[in-house]
Amino acid sequence: MKTTGGSDEQKQRAGEKAVEYVNDGDIVGLGTGSTAATAIDALGDAVTAGYDIRGVPTSLATRDRAIEQGIPLTQIEAVDQIDIAIDGADQVDNESTLIKGGGAAHAREKVIDAIADQFIVVADTSKLVETVSEPIPVSVLPMAQTPVKRHLESLGATPTLRSADRKDGPVITDNGNLVFDCAFGSIEDAESVSQSLAGIPGVVAHGLFVDLADIVCVGTEDGVDIYPKE
Amino acid sequence: MKTTGGSDEQKQRAGEKAVEYVNDGDIVGLGTGSTAATAIDALGDAVTAGYDIRGVPTSLATRDRAIEQGIPLTQIEAVDQIDIAIDGADQVDNESTLIKGGGAAHAREKVIDAIADQFIVVADTSKLVETVSEPIPVSVLPMAQTPVKRHLESLGATPTLRSADRKDGPVITDNGNLVFDCAFGSIEDAESVSQSLAGIPGVVAHGLFVDLADIVCVGTEDGVDIYPKE
Repeated sequence: MKTTGGSDEQKQRAGEKAVEYVNDGDIVGLGTGSTAATAIDALGDAVTAGYDIRGVPTSLATRDRAIEQGIPLTQIEAVDQIDIAIDGADQVDNESTLIKGGGAAHAREKVIDAIADQFIVVADTSKLVETVSEPIPVSVLPMAQTPVKRHLESLGATPTLRSADRKDGPVITDNGNLVFDCAFGSIEDAESVSQSLAGIPGVVAHGLFVDLADIVCVGTEDGVDIYPKE
Repeated sequence: MKTTGGSDEQKQRAGEKAVEYVNDGDIVGLGTGSTAATAIDALGDAVTAGYDIRGVPTSLATRDRAIEQGIPLTQIEAVDQIDIAIDGADQVDNESTLIKGGGAAHAREKVIDAIADQFIVVADTSKLVETVSEPIPVSVLPMAQTPVKRHLESLGATPTLRSADRKDGPVITDNGNLVFDCAFGSIEDAESVSQSLAGIPGVVAHGLFVDLADIVCVGTEDGVDIYPKE
């Protein structure tokens, strides 16, 4: 899990602000990463204060943190809808386009963030950019590793298979897939890149989130900026 | 595996014709299904006759059949390219758009058929239609079953979770995913449907193959028709 960039205070301000959008009774999608974790902690406080909410975690790590915080959990199949999702991002640009997946949870995150009635992004100032440009994490069926790599290169990306730190060989996602981190440089037409990536046979999910975020809460040195500006 | 529709003789004629496109030394993608199986048998004869080819199977069932037929196998990661793929289809239309996946192997099939220099489709006359209209098999991450179902319905499909015959519960694909068979009715704009399906968070692969087939060999009562007409 990435914890670099941005101060802990900024992250915490963003997470606490996002939780203000949660209503009593809500089903809440719980994002993954160090900033989303501050929102989970704040949700735990809300539960302690009497809020009747249930969480749907986007990763094994998030599930465990939510349990620690005493947040009642449910399954996505057991609910009619997800009212609100709170999740971090590796980069956020002017159009609220996101790059996500440093923690390799982007497949589950996208499913839950996309189905939520309202999707709140939490970030610190180090994540804000004019145009997203980080390598895009692309998860891939293991048997498709080589063909997908060639296909990514033909789209102009420089794909790097993400290797694991504490096991031999590559990172395996919670869904059993591999991850290519795909450097495209600055991404001007995110919708087009998103469609091209989704159309590659063997690609399971990718970390470019276009037109999904409703509100972005950015923790700053002395408060929280909300985008789009109200 | 579907074995309905079309006579065994038609299938065999198509499979034998397709193998005529294979050159000595080729790396051959091996499709899945009853018609593709006739091509595997004909490839086995070619190997017996001295052809030096290697096969890349698209499913566990196909791998086993190729081993039975004495076809040397390799891995997709171990080869620079796949020269030719031979695969069946549930439906083929005028534009060589295919619906595939009755056997739930469409994810691996699409990866291999798409990367092959030449992709030969084998079919019998019962598979030929003006416009494809069979339910499209869509494979889905298990955790995304409910959100994807709603998303499919919003696109106008009637999705049915494919249930297993010889285990309790749903079919699980060779890649560990679920399958929705998605009735859309007649599909006029296949490219648009293909893009919409690929863009749904949680969808791993779908069985609509657009602009992938190079040649279609259709076994008839007294020969083989080749499309596009030469």
